[in-house]
Amino acid sequence: MKIGTVTGSVWSSRKATCLMGQTFLVVDTPEGEVVAADQVGAGTGDRVLLVTGTVASRFCMEAPVDAAVVAILDNNGMKKP
Amino acid sequence: MKIGTVTGSVWSSRKATCLMGQTFLVVDTPEGEVVAADQVGAGTGDRVLLVTGTVASRFCMEAPVDAAVVAILDNNGMKKP
Amino acid sequence: MKIGTVTGSVWSSRKATCLMGQTFLVVDTPEGEVVAADQVGAGTGDRVLLVTGTVASRFCMEAPVDAAVVAILDNNGMKKP
Amino acid sequence: MKIGTVTGSVWSSRKATCLMGQTFLVVDTPEGEVVAADQVGAGTGDRVLLVTGTVASRFCMEAPVDAAVVAILDNNGMKKP
Amino acid sequence: MKIGTVTGSVWSSRKATCLMGQTFLVVDTPEGEVVAADQVGAGTGDRVLLVTGTVASRFCMEAPVDAAVVAILDNNGMKKP
Repeated sequence: MKIGTVTGSVWSSRKATCLMGQTFLVVDTPEGEVVAADQVGAGTGDRVLLVTGTVASRFCMEAPVDAAVVAILDNNGMKKP
Repeated sequence: MKIGTVTGSVWSSRKATCLMGQTFLVVDTPEGEVVAADQVGAGTGDRVLLVTGTVASRFCMEAPVDAAVVAILDNNGMKKP
Repeated sequence: MKIGTVTGSVWSSRKATCLMGQTFLVVDTPEGEVVAADQVGAGTGDRVLLVTGTVASRFCMEAPVDAAVVAILDNNGMKKP
Repeated sequence: MKIGTVTGSVWSSRKATCLMGQTFLVVDTPEGEVVAADQVGAGTGDRVLLVTGTVASRFCMEAPVDAAVVAILDNNGMKKP
Repeated sequence: MKIGTVTGSVWSSRKATCLMGQTFLVVDTPEGEVVAADQVGAGTGDRVLLVTGTVASRFCMEAPVDAAVVAILDNNGMKKP
């Protein structure tokens, strides 16, 4: 998984039927901008955990997405000893 | 998913039989040029949402592709607060 | 998919049994050199369409490969308006 | 697989239900920071073997993760002749 | 697939049970160092063909790996016309 920060969302009125009902967040990561389905109700500014690839499409939900936000990190969510 | 812009299409008269019937768009992304199956009727200049990897081949359609255009973003499709 | 140019082929007399019968082309892409199974009879100098990842292994053919050449682009195969 | 070094862990109180029960380690790799499910009880400073992609989600365990720590390398774990 | 050169191997006495019985080679590629399961008896210095991703885990063998060495290239294994 990757750690990123939510910077906004995208909206489309012309999309594949199978994508209906998904909320898509824009997440800024060290590897660039990713658009991800929201599974946890994240909002702009949240630091989140991002799952990418096939795994994003078949756990928790069944959806035709290659990226999903699966957790919001706590303020002290990264602990380095 | 990634956000990109359609710059054209590719055409081939010699292709694997299993690819017949697909329209292939050239999409410019921050990570470079990707050729993707069109699922939404996108055209040159459209800003689109791109799904890559296995997911592209088995939702909405069954096709041997590793990238698909699944949505056309509205003019104000990216909302940053 | 990615667009690349065939630059040659590789040959191995010591390979996993499950790879027997495949022809492997070396394809030059903007992201570097990829070795791909040939599904269309491509030759050196051909501009081709390259499928990568799991998709390459299970459509058209069943083979343990992570990249396949699935189309030869026509001379005017890329159309930019 | 990739070789990396564990630098800490992440903690989230707001995560997808399907992620409950996993421990997530932050692993530093040559390609950047990865968050991975721990399968071997690794701790900070350990040099580890990292599996990424779909494979991480379906062997040894069934979990919605795209990266997993599957081995701790011995001090002399990498042998170059 | 990618072409790389075997530079050594890794050894671990603390690993996930499902990894038992695999030999792991370190392979140097243009994209960096990869650790891969050996399917062909490759040794240090051999130029090899590397399969990555899910495909590596389910053809020829069933193993929780995301990279496998599937062929040793002959000395004149790459032919450029």
